[in-house]
Amino acid sequence: MHTLETKHKIEARLSKGLHDVLPQQAIARQHMIATIQHVYELYGFVPLHTPAIEYSDVLTGSAGHESDTNRFHVISPEHEHLGLRFDLTVPLARVVAQYPELPRPFRRYQVAPVWRADKPDPGRFREFTQFDIDSVGVPSHIADTEIIAAMCDTLDALHVERYVVRFSSRAILNLLLDFAGIPREYGVDVFRVLDKLEKVGLHNVRLELMGGYKNDAQDTIEGIGLTAAQVDRIEAFLGLHSAHRDEMIAGLRDLFAHVPGAQHEIDVIDRISGHLHRLGYGDDRVVIDLSVARGLAYYTGPVFEASLLDAPRFGSVFSGGRYDDLITRFHGERIPATGASIGVDRLLAALTHLHGTKHHKATAHVLVTSMDPSLESDYIDMTWELRRAGIPAELYLGAAESLGKQLKHANHCGIPIAVIAGTHEKAHGTVTLKNLIAGSKHTASLHGREEWLAARAGQITVPRADLVTAVRHMLDGHAESGA
Amino acid sequence: MHTLETKHKIEARLSKGLHDVLPQQAIARQHMIATIQHVYELYGFVPLHTPAIEYSDVLTGSAGHESDTNRFHVISPEHEHLGLRFDLTVPLARVVAQYPELPRPFRRYQVAPVWRADKPDPGRFREFTQFDIDSVGVPSHIADTEIIAAMCDTLDALHVERYVVRFSSRAILNLLLDFAGIPREYGVDVFRVLDKLEKVGLHNVRLELMGGYKNDAQDTIEGIGLTAAQVDRIEAFLGLHSAHRDEMIAGLRDLFAHVPGAQHEIDVIDRISGHLHRLGYGDDRVVIDLSVARGLAYYTGPVFEASLLDAPRFGSVFSGGRYDDLITRFHGERIPATGASIGVDRLLAALTHLHGTKHHKATAHVLVTSMDPSLESDYIDMTWELRRAGIPAELYLGAAESLGKQLKHANHCGIPIAVIAGTHEKAHGTVTLKNLIAGSKHTASLHGREEWLAARAGQITVPRADLVTAVRHMLDGHAESGA
Repeated sequence: MHTLETKHKIEARLSKGLHDVLPQQAIARQHMIATIQHVYELYGFVPLHTPAIEYSDVLTGSAGHESDTNRFHVISPEHEHLGLRFDLTVPLARVVAQYPELPRPFRRYQVAPVWRADKPDPGRFREFTQFDIDSVGVPSHIADTEIIAAMCDTLDALHVERYVVRFSSRAILNLLLDFAGIPREYGVDVFRVLDKLEKVGLHNVRLELMGGYKNDAQDTIEGIGLTAAQVDRIEAFLGLHSAHRDEMIAGLRDLFAHVPGAQHEIDVIDRISGHLHRLGYGDDRVVIDLSVARGLAYYTGPVFEASLLDAPRFGSVFSGGRYDDLITRFHGERIPATGASIGVDRLLAALTHLHGTKHHKATAHVLVTSMDPSLESDYIDMTWELRRAGIPAELYLGAAESLGKQLKHANHCGIPIAVIAGTHEKAHGTVTLKNLIAGSKHTASLHGREEWLAARAGQITVPRADLVTAVRHMLDGHAESGA
Repeated sequence: MHTLETKHKIEARLSKGLHDVLPQQAIARQHMIATIQHVYELYGFVPLHTPAIEYSDVLTGSAGHESDTNRFHVISPEHEHLGLRFDLTVPLARVVAQYPELPRPFRRYQVAPVWRADKPDPGRFREFTQFDIDSVGVPSHIADTEIIAAMCDTLDALHVERYVVRFSSRAILNLLLDFAGIPREYGVDVFRVLDKLEKVGLHNVRLELMGGYKNDAQDTIEGIGLTAAQVDRIEAFLGLHSAHRDEMIAGLRDLFAHVPGAQHEIDVIDRISGHLHRLGYGDDRVVIDLSVARGLAYYTGPVFEASLLDAPRFGSVFSGGRYDDLITRFHGERIPATGASIGVDRLLAALTHLHGTKHHKATAHVLVTSMDPSLESDYIDMTWELRRAGIPAELYLGAAESLGKQLKHANHCGIPIAVIAGTHEKAHGTVTLKNLIAGSKHTASLHGREEWLAARAGQITVPRADLVTAVRHMLDGHAESGA
């Protein structure tokens, strides 16, 4: 640092698709993460921490739905092929394969950034944080039930009033193939076309499933060659809709009445739905929705995704499913697994949209102002007295000398109370507390005129010995008024 | 995932210098991080989150003490020069320069991984987590005082019984140059040699400060050409030792009695020491140690480092200092700043060395075993009943059918209580709780022979309706016995 390049200034900036989370948002984000973590720990999931950098073959071999080009490549001193993880599921699969000593079932949560070198959009970042839960080594449908319940409990804990978890199953889509008389090996092509339903509409999906069509831009969309009878059956399937899970299940049982093995697969969905009903996860928040696709190439069983009904533009904020093949690639052994992932940044944006920024901007509840340099020891004593009483406090240590500027700093930071103690207060053995939350309802509960006047001005003078008590009292007033 | 590469297995492994933190360690790590965060928030520091990837010039321009070769380079789709951050101070400096709307003083904490492509050693990782606090825009020595106090409070909160924070100052070392009649521009060379004191000893340091010497390997170590009189003065300085800060300050005042401006600089150290004394941070845990160097090229004022007296081999686990020039490079403006950084992984290793792994391996307190598939609804009900009572619980969902294997799973995970409910219990309207913590002192408080026998066997049968109460009672027993 002794050769400061002061002549050649460097521009303070970030590469596209990267973003900072500044304190006010970071406080809300931390609160959100702690809330989610609490739910996951109630469910007995344990934390795992893995490095950001993985071998490229570990990342790529598992891609499937992820192309290699959206990976951030990393150069190590040994010139190995490394990259930044693009999700937390692949590192989990690696860990399960690498540490045979881990318990099985292995139920872990992990909250960490992932990187994708996609084309960045306004709400789409290249580095973003995911919060995942997964159960590994769990063949039981109860594990899937548990993930859906955890999704509901998490959204409840985050005070999301209206949400819906929609679920479907890869097994049901396989039954659709059987029902329509389509060999299973064509499934990938069929599902790829069905995935476009929302985008291009039923009419064009029908055409693409059969002979193809020319789109608005006069580009030829190749068809996959199904017959009209096959496509009619697919359309009958897509027509199954009900807000009641039991009706959906009955509809599926009817539709697939003559498909061999279908009733067994529908039983699984039925049992998941039944368990959810008994635990109180009703039709009002968990529905069976056959349009849930979730990159089906990746999943092997039930799939789920949650959206916030009052913030639909944020899309699916929390999603997952069963993937029984992911670890096979390392192990040979097929290990059944199921889980779900929260897009932390997207969910935070959605919650901020729903609830506003109701979190404090500051961690400090008190700013001890610095009025007179000769009293610095007093200010230090007050600050530590507050901290030691468990009240977060900042001592003003900036360059500004005027009280006005220091109070402006408190307001800017969102610190609700300022302590003011100049030579006058020192001489009288008092301190003044200034209530920086305007219009506090606290004033309404005061009686004496003098007290009321002082409170209206947002400031009160108390004996120095009562500092902590008086601050607590003022903070209680803020809490009561919901400030 | 439909094209599984099952034939070509991928090896589950990490590149050198990278490591996973498995659940037991991750639980302890999370507890440690939460404890530190609590202290920092009491001090009113606010969180900040920045991306791992920064522009290379942002990282490199600030290097000084960091060579460019130990950077992990990252390739973006646009082929920009990017890299992974090597510390959290440079991103802080960028943020302060980039967002003029941030309050000043800006006091933030950040806990996040950093990357250094160093030669990896057993205890030295290429990706490791730092937990930093910094105050930006704080000319006052009270800001440095606060950092030292926060270091002590943090180590206290982590239950470190014996530690010492050693501090010195770049200003004091500049006074040494004046005292020895060495022009300040030679400072960097002099300090570089002094940094070797512990490694090569006083004799060789003397020789290197003067004409140089041949080391054991017969390599010539060039001298920097000081005179014997100059080196005598340096030696007098290095001879200043006292366990009492006041004696060190008196010693410095004597030694530098005739150095212009010295008393003013010593006054600063004196005031920091005085504030610390008054707040109760005594000589037993904060000392002035003139050998603290801390990459002095980087720092401009007080420097501090903490070490754990009962875990000396972990070295400095927590260190920092004042750096008034770091932001200049972006801004032109000189912004005074001070802070400290914890090496999270190293401190965790040291705490594990000191305290053992006393944290629970599991988050779940209860494993609800799965005895009879026809009772799965009962097991689900019990599990959610516990969770909804705030007791973290896992429902066994693995493939093992025998109770023995399920109990082994609980033991492996470190879950202290198992709930057992087979057809026998169902018929009697009871559940059995098995206490998996061997030798619980809880047994000592029991009276009746039958109860004692049951407790010795570590198991107790209670009415189904009493499940939550009985689990709470057993957990209280664990807490009392310190298990």
